[in-house]
Amino acid sequence: MTCDGASTAVDWAPIQYAGRADRIRSRLDDHRVEALAVTDMTNVRWLTGFTGSNASVAVLPDRLVLVTDGRYRDRATDELAAADVEAEVVVGFTHDAQHEAFVSAFGGIATVGAAARSLVHARWQVLAAELPLVTVDGLIEDERRTKDAGEIARISEACRCADAALAEVAPMLVEGPTEADVRMELEYRMRRNGADGPSYDTIVASGPSHAARPHHQAGKRQIVEGDTVVIDVGALVDGYHSDMTRSYVIGDPTPEQRDVYQLLLAVQVAGLRAVTSGVATRDVDAVCRSMSVEAGYGDWFLHSTGHGVGLLIHEDPFVSPASTADLRVGDVVTVEPGLYRVGFGGFRIEDLVEVTETGCRILTASPKDTPCPPSPPTI
Amino acid sequence: MTCDGASTAVDWAPIQYAGRADRIRSRLDDHRVEALAVTDMTNVRWLTGFTGSNASVAVLPDRLVLVTDGRYRDRATDELAAADVEAEVVVGFTHDAQHEAFVSAFGGIATVGAAARSLVHARWQVLAAELPLVTVDGLIEDERRTKDAGEIARISEACRCADAALAEVAPMLVEGPTEADVRMELEYRMRRNGADGPSYDTIVASGPSHAARPHHQAGKRQIVEGDTVVIDVGALVDGYHSDMTRSYVIGDPTPEQRDVYQLLLAVQVAGLRAVTSGVATRDVDAVCRSMSVEAGYGDWFLHSTGHGVGLLIHEDPFVSPASTADLRVGDVVTVEPGLYRVGFGGFRIEDLVEVTETGCRILTASPKDTPCPPSPPTI
Repeated sequence: MTCDGASTAVDWAPIQYAGRADRIRSRLDDHRVEALAVTDMTNVRWLTGFTGSNASVAVLPDRLVLVTDGRYRDRATDELAAADVEAEVVVGFTHDAQHEAFVSAFGGIATVGAAARSLVHARWQVLAAELPLVTVDGLIEDERRTKDAGEIARISEACRCADAALAEVAPMLVEGPTEADVRMELEYRMRRNGADGPSYDTIVASGPSHAARPHHQAGKRQIVEGDTVVIDVGALVDGYHSDMTRSYVIGDPTPEQRDVYQLLLAVQVAGLRAVTSGVATRDVDAVCRSMSVEAGYGDWFLHSTGHGVGLLIHEDPFVSPASTADLRVGDVVTVEPGLYRVGFGGFRIEDLVEVTETGCRILTASPKDTPCPPSPPTI
Repeated sequence: MTCDGASTAVDWAPIQYAGRADRIRSRLDDHRVEALAVTDMTNVRWLTGFTGSNASVAVLPDRLVLVTDGRYRDRATDELAAADVEAEVVVGFTHDAQHEAFVSAFGGIATVGAAARSLVHARWQVLAAELPLVTVDGLIEDERRTKDAGEIARISEACRCADAALAEVAPMLVEGPTEADVRMELEYRMRRNGADGPSYDTIVASGPSHAARPHHQAGKRQIVEGDTVVIDVGALVDGYHSDMTRSYVIGDPTPEQRDVYQLLLAVQVAGLRAVTSGVATRDVDAVCRSMSVEAGYGDWFLHSTGHGVGLLIHEDPFVSPASTADLRVGDVVTVEPGLYRVGFGGFRIEDLVEVTETGCRILTASPKDTPCPPSPPTI
């Protein structure tokens, strides 16, 4: 029941919610709509600071209206005030009342944008029966890319919690524990170090077959001497995620294990060096991919190089061959190449970085020089 | 790194997947469709045993087709074979290829049911451009209500993990720890006792204001003498959830705390006694609600009495005044009345039960006779 970090008072830089509705308004013309119906809860949170599970927001030319249910009457008002967001909060005590309030907020508007990729069809139909809906997907997601100082502070704190947990757990990487044991300890220790919880299901993938699968979930397999072990671990702090991977060899690495690890480390560092404002995300992916291919490991390179991280663990921009995005200042993205082969196992090395004018700032700090876990403390 | 339960070999009764597609087929006529497009991943899992994150299933008159992506080629085949489900597995390496394979599976079919309440509008439109879609919501959700022996075994095991964790943590309920500390210990110890993880974000709500909010999340508040504390904790085992709440007083309860607790316990036991096959869920709710009202605590009764639990933590049937469902043998539902008032705090007592012909079998076993936590062991 002791607690290293969870009770510490927090005093991060505030998140700048106040100007966000205007950033969205300024882009509505491009999408040929006068107003926006915001129904995705991550977007509602980004726009208003409201953290409940049910609300819809009308972004209108001259005002903002948030409609929620009776459970959230006080919380919505309090959270919007704390976020310094000027909006009318309307409470509907039934679904019908909420629907009516939301629709009537758009009175007199000729075209209303809505997200066809996140609204379920049944609700789209109900809204479209009363509002002039036009598909507008990805607008807020695009604005969400640019993190402010308050958001970076929370993501950095999440990185610190994961770094601290991994530092405590890495010396336990010897023959004996199962993957699930290691995951359990990591998630427990992230919380002890101050996290609200894990950012996603922690991946602990060990041995010739599990470590060769990029998306393996921790299972009952016991870790043994000679294994490669991939640990993908992140923390959640005040709604913001972190993401990091480190890879290990249990016992003395073989020459092949050393070679593959050192190649991957060089690939990952090259990827980090390619990150800067203005560069195409697909070019960052190409740096890692082509370097692996040239070294003769093209078949081992199974997934794209990274993705954005923020209020979601996977968000824009994606760092992949198919992406058309260019990196911008304030993007927070992963650089996480991996090399895998069934029989060998695999390695992935992943850092989370903030894109700057001249390169990037690395937010994750766990050591990655060698695949050897630190020795347990001796007495 | 020691582990009490996570490495134990598991050997539960098998889940009976094989007949499920026929159960769905036998109900298609009622909905005036010849086939069903299943796109919700919980429904895909229930129908086929596939546990990946991307697949669509075509339930056709004479065959079952599962379409997934390249990541899941082997896993889909393996999991369907393990589930003894006869289906064609089609792998599409791009979104377009998956779409094309899914659409072509319905060739010659005149009417295809699809779930408007879960399919996003964009995908509905793409499918509706090529298929004769008809809205069919809630059909698989209704069949999912009836749990088989393998499902009950997993839910029971999840209950056992939560019971074991709470037994370890309840003696720590003294002045000192924060809500987040207690949550952290509960989630850690559920895993040590064999769970795959928590079933939902564990609720630890303490004191005059937090314990009065049914949906409070565990925070940094320190628990102090005189607090009421509501702990809502469940485990996840092989995809199946458990759900349980116990409530406590820190230190000696006041006469009012004792009275409210004993009233609530009587209300909850009356609710359990009302559960049996054939009874309307709203009548179970009414038993708890009216008994609270008659005792003068109507204003303290803030939420409905329960809900179904299975592959989701909240699923059909809902035990509420608005529900039109009757209980059936094999339903697994919570009975969880609560009494709350700001200033006092609150109590909730929740058990998870399996509905039987003659009543119910209670799956959760943590003691609930008194609001006093067990004393810490003395040396």
